[in-house]
Amino acid sequence: MRTPAQNARLALLLEVAGTPKPGNVDRRRDLADLRFEHFLAGTVGAEEGLEMAQNGDSVGDAFERAVEGMASQGGGNTQFGALLLLVPLVRATADGERLSPSTVESVVEETTVADAAGFYRAFDHVDVFVADPPTEMEPLDVRRGSDAVPALEDRGLTLLDVMDRSVPGDDVAREWVTGFERSFAAADRLVEAEGPATDRAASVFLSLLAERPDTLVANRHDEDVARKVSDRAATLFERDALETDPDAVETFAEDLVERGINPGTTADVTAAGLYIALERGGLEV
Amino acid sequence: MRTPAQNARLALLLEVAGTPKPGNVDRRRDLADLRFEHFLAGTVGAEEGLEMAQNGDSVGDAFERAVEGMASQGGGNTQFGALLLLVPLVRATADGERLSPSTVESVVEETTVADAAGFYRAFDHVDVFVADPPTEMEPLDVRRGSDAVPALEDRGLTLLDVMDRSVPGDDVAREWVTGFERSFAAADRLVEAEGPATDRAASVFLSLLAERPDTLVANRHDEDVARKVSDRAATLFERDALETDPDAVETFAEDLVERGINPGTTADVTAAGLYIALERGGLEV
Repeated sequence: MRTPAQNARLALLLEVAGTPKPGNVDRRRDLADLRFEHFLAGTVGAEEGLEMAQNGDSVGDAFERAVEGMASQGGGNTQFGALLLLVPLVRATADGERLSPSTVESVVEETTVADAAGFYRAFDHVDVFVADPPTEMEPLDVRRGSDAVPALEDRGLTLLDVMDRSVPGDDVAREWVTGFERSFAAADRLVEAEGPATDRAASVFLSLLAERPDTLVANRHDEDVARKVSDRAATLFERDALETDPDAVETFAEDLVERGINPGTTADVTAAGLYIALERGGLEV
Repeated sequence: MRTPAQNARLALLLEVAGTPKPGNVDRRRDLADLRFEHFLAGTVGAEEGLEMAQNGDSVGDAFERAVEGMASQGGGNTQFGALLLLVPLVRATADGERLSPSTVESVVEETTVADAAGFYRAFDHVDVFVADPPTEMEPLDVRRGSDAVPALEDRGLTLLDVMDRSVPGDDVAREWVTGFERSFAAADRLVEAEGPATDRAASVFLSLLAERPDTLVANRHDEDVARKVSDRAATLFERDALETDPDAVETFAEDLVERGINPGTTADVTAAGLYIALERGGLEV
């Protein structure tokens, strides 16, 4: 029997092993400076933060620790967004509760200003790509890291408040305010799918990319690029190309890598779905 | 900073990710019923046993727990031999000592009959391929698992005694009686090699296979098969085929998989070498 924190680790490993996951590092594909092994080391580094969440530590402290450990490898940011989903999802099991949308909603609703401060401190440990904030939010730009904590405390914002202000434009934050809707939907699809867990991860990744443009792609490139990537994923998903025409998916994957387009938010939601499916049962490895 | 137990986990992950590792599961290759994801889950399952070794628990208890957890996945035995090397290598750091051939020799020399009993109990948790023992050792056939413990206690054999009686014919046991000679040599080669850690793992795997026939292959098939595999690895290694002719190594890999030849002992020593190189420094990820 794996613990929730162990299921979270396995979810991170299965996510990166799933292939093809167009545009991202996967079992078959490295990027120039971001390699598969960095995700393996990132997972090992995140162990302690995930244990903290499981043991009932605050979401902010557990997240900061997980990110600090994750960043102890040479590839830079590997799993920041995935951990921002996994930490509350693991924390939701800390009081012996069964993981559900309502237990994780309670966790995020109970976050405090101190949790928000932990989230900001996490940015001190690693460079994360984020879009420019609107002018009135500039003092709270996450890239300020711990320097933004006084402004955060002045405004009395909890971590859920911070996430709420990041929607739209960040589909990891969106999970926080929607009861982790897409993460649970992804878990259902992972359970219903067939075959090895890594094949299921690839299929569910494509389904998620098909249904909503990736917000990391939209922020790094623009919304038009993100929408076109999503449309192409939808075309492939609708004709079940992973089964019927795997070369077409590989071509899509190569093309995204060449253009430096990495649908990282979609990978984050896939990791969250893998964790939920492992933790609630139905996905066996 | 990773702990020794964390370095052991990362070593298991890097070992299976190294590709090509002819005949074995690797980042690019699954076997029919033994897949990459089983090794990921096996690594997560082994966590607690490795923590026990790090915290100074006995080698036998830590090993049994590591194997029990490792076996909690659907692929069967993934990392039994690797854990039989990693547990004493992690245990060697428990008293704040720097890992070296002499500290790990002390660990194996101090093993007891109780440690041997833990080793035998580990066989209750998973099917491991082993050769038939000589007649006088039949009551101590490891496949008897915990049923053999009374015979073990009658004879007063420590775990090091058991390993000593398994040489020749088992190159994991050989490490125990040679101060982990090949494991430390593999670590040196991993440090001296260039490129990503997973590429280094593949290169060192090939060098180890080239220098000694794999004992798992010899036991499952015969010594002639094992020697021919090793000779072919030597030819490829001598002409630096991973760099100069990667297709030739891929062909070798495909051929071994087709013939059901898995040099698992060589993979075990590779994992031990990765751990040593991570723990002593010189191999960065």
